Amino acid sequence: MNFQQKLEKAVKKNNSLLCVGLDSDVEKMSSGTIRHPTQFSFNKAIIEATSDLVCSYKLNTAFYESIGHLGIKALKDTCDYLMTNYPEIPIIIDAKRGDIGNTNKGYVQFVFTYLGGDAVTMHPYLGEEAIRPFLDEKDKGIFVLCRTSNSGAGEFQDIEFKIKNSKLRINRKLRLYEYVAYQASHSWNMDRNVGLVVGATYPEELKNVREIAGEQMWFLVPGIGAQGGDTATTMKAGLNKKGTGLIINSSRGIIFSKDPRVEAAKLRDKINQFR
Amino acid sequence: MNFQQKLEKAVKKNNSLLCVGLDSDVEKMSSGTIRHPTQFSFNKAIIEATSDLVCSYKLNTAFYESIGHLGIKALKDTCDYLMTNYPEIPIIIDAKRGDIGNTNKGYVQFVFTYLGGDAVTMHPYLGEEAIRPFLDEKDKGIFVLCRTSNSGAGEFQDIEFKIKNSKLRINRKLRLYEYVAYQASHSWNMDRNVGLVVGATYPEELKNVREIAGEQMWFLVPGIGAQGGDTATTMKAGLNKKGTGLIINSSRGIIFSKDPRVEAAKLRDKINQFR
Repeated sequence: MNFQQKLEKAVKKNNSLLCVGLDSDVEKMSSGTIRHPTQFSFNKAIIEATSDLVCSYKLNTAFYESIGHLGIKALKDTCDYLMTNYPEIPIIIDAKRGDIGNTNKGYVQFVFTYLGGDAVTMHPYLGEEAIRPFLDEKDKGIFVLCRTSNSGAGEFQDIEFKIKNSKLRINRKLRLYEYVAYQASHSWNMDRNVGLVVGATYPEELKNVREIAGEQMWFLVPGIGAQGGDTATTMKAGLNKKGTGLIINSSRGIIFSKDPRVEAAKLRDKINQFR
Repeated sequence: MNFQQKLEKAVKKNNSLLCVGLDSDVEKMSSGTIRHPTQFSFNKAIIEATSDLVCSYKLNTAFYESIGHLGIKALKDTCDYLMTNYPEIPIIIDAKRGDIGNTNKGYVQFVFTYLGGDAVTMHPYLGEEAIRPFLDEKDKGIFVLCRTSNSGAGEFQDIEFKIKNSKLRINRKLRLYEYVAYQASHSWNMDRNVGLVVGATYPEELKNVREIAGEQMWFLVPGIGAQGGDTATTMKAGLNKKGTGLIINSSRGIIFSKDPRVEAAKLRDKINQFR
């Protein structure tokens, strides 16, 4: 079973497009209402409270690296715990890596062998040839950063240029994020293992990316909740005709809330209203 | 003392622009002529053999992450060892990170607090606003990926567009890597803590970037040796008028050679011929 099949099975089983982001920042983790001594025990509590409400979990490596090797161990323990107890739920490692080919092999080992992740997020700046070691992992999911959710995302991503590419049958003006969407969906995706990261804070751009990438591709969508993205607008802009194709991530808004289960259920149901 | 001052002191003391990349791939480490049981002991041996020949050491996180938390511990032990025994030699953490602002704080803690690095490499795709937590580290060095050394680097980096930017006084056609060089050197560099990564495999582009970034900025230059970059051509293209401004990295060509000290001395001296 490849990543897309595993994801679609989880979407169906839990009737959910919600991804809970386990951004277990040690500073916030110990200051909220639900307190836990370690990132791993905190994550276990969140997973226990939400496992029947999600289509996937996303772990952003930054919150674990921040405390060094013990954080990386907590990240691995969390992945091991998920694989043992919830093997049907896909694990997305939000690592935003991207190096030259030879070096990316180390990151492939980290994300897929050591952690046992099902999918990863990647920077596009070095191009397809560099991320080939990731793309060659046919059963995994490779989410390429396309339009990021941050307020200054447009600095490079909105640059516009005329492009003539006979292979892709393009002969018009495109913005950089649109060209990344074209390349990732049409050139890099021979094994149907590529997805895109598009922020909920940019619904117009999300709509463009859906038009470019087509019906089949899954988008990982951060930016709902704390970052200001609106659920209804996001769903309308990005959903495919089957009412899927979007993995809606929420992290802080759920895991540091008074009742993560209640918040997760609320958001899952809200998302489903628009499917 | 900030990163640039520390670097320039080390350049002077060791009369060197050579950076040795401690890319201690566990698979190659145990198959070469010099064998060591751990990444840390391997690194110590390389450092002992080369510490008077380098201007800096570069550690690429991929080779440590590949074996998980124990690799991260070896990375930290290596940094601790350098800080204790060779506090005058700058440590560059080649992490190629880049997330939204809130999340980058975790990476800042990893690279500068936990590891104690002096500099880091970053992806530009999310723009200045996202990497602000790094740029705010005024005493550190932030090397932004500009023109990478891989053969497919041009896929996005060579995209050409007309740009009109009154603040930067540009009104002409630029390639994406050139615009990254403009932004990083002219807009992001208010604290003189920004550098650029430009591959030795692209001397023409290196020359362009020197013209854009000016005399003061330091470039981290991978791609000499195993990747095919030529020393003479690189030095001619990228050196500033003071005969500095380039940190020439070599990893595999030195650390997995029969005699790392001999290879490091040879490359340092070859680099100095062209200064």
